Amino acid sequence: MRSTDIIMKPIGVIHTPFKSVSDSIPVQGRLHPGAEGYIELIDEYRDASRDLEGFSHIFLLYHLHVSNEERTITKPYMDTEQRGVFSTRSPHRPNHIGLSLVTLVGVTGGRLTVRDVDMLDGTPLLDIKPYNPRFDAPSDDDEVRTGWMKTISTGHSDGVTTKTRSHDEWLQKPFKDK
Amino acid sequence: MRSTDIIMKPIGVIHTPFKSVSDSIPVQGRLHPGAEGYIELIDEYRDASRDLEGFSHIFLLYHLHVSNEERTITKPYMDTEQRGVFSTRSPHRPNHIGLSLVTLVGVTGGRLTVRDVDMLDGTPLLDIKPYNPRFDAPSDDDEVRTGWMKTISTGHSDGVTTKTRSHDEWLQKPFKDK
Repeated sequence: MRSTDIIMKPIGVIHTPFKSVSDSIPVQGRLHPGAEGYIELIDEYRDASRDLEGFSHIFLLYHLHVSNEERTITKPYMDTEQRGVFSTRSPHRPNHIGLSLVTLVGVTGGRLTVRDVDMLDGTPLLDIKPYNPRFDAPSDDDEVRTGWMKTISTGHSDGVTTKTRSHDEWLQKPFKDK
Repeated sequence: MRSTDIIMKPIGVIHTPFKSVSDSIPVQGRLHPGAEGYIELIDEYRDASRDLEGFSHIFLLYHLHVSNEERTITKPYMDTEQRGVFSTRSPHRPNHIGLSLVTLVGVTGGRLTVRDVDMLDGTPLLDIKPYNPRFDAPSDDDEVRTGWMKTISTGHSDGVTTKTRSHDEWLQKPFKDK
């Protein structure tokens, strides 16, 4: 360990229908909406979910625990070129933190039912943030540009991966040359 | 350390005009837009920022390194009641991960200039995610509810804190009773 290291601990576990990376996992939940999952909070964090039920959408921050690859350049699932990993949502990134906006269906005790999930079953949860378009989205006057993702935004995403169906596909092995 | 602990490391440092928690820090950058800052990436992650310049907005995930309080219930800055911490964006939370959407002004080498910052100068950066409304925002048909934050969303937020101007204000000491 280095002195600048930061230690985190799971606050709960995310359960989803996706048992392995070969299991047709959506690359982004909102591109293939509908899959339902639930969060089991660790007992000591049960009270921390109070007042969440008033929110329709929440961000989940989680540990992309199955990837042990840390890349600086990678081919994104939704593209055919290699890109700087911080311009992608690839799991093979430094610190392996995942971020997904999900629909909150309900809260009962320490269990949160959510929809539009795109994580593996058993993913360790690190944090929950309530979604508020007032500060989590650009303002109406802002011009929004989505760089290389433009084709996905406009729906012209033929030939790219929007679900992972095999370990190789999930791994997106980087090319040697470019 | 426990076997479930996860070790993270900074990928860079966020520099902002806010030198201390008494320094009129916006509680949310997009509620007081304009403040400019920059990110200094650690050398080994320079290439990872390639292709980012095409994006107008990025999420910063960072370590809320000044808080050493971990609460389950707290009074949010923007409210007068105590709330479950996962329904708030309070820094005094498990794992102390911060999430902010900022405007990307430019990328030069390992330096990213950003606008609408709301973190302390010197905040350790953990990850950068490109913003894409196609999956980072609810779809147009979704009903969006923002629970106890409703008043902030509609602009009726009189009497609540939208900037922290003192250590006590930043700390938002929880009440004993409720």
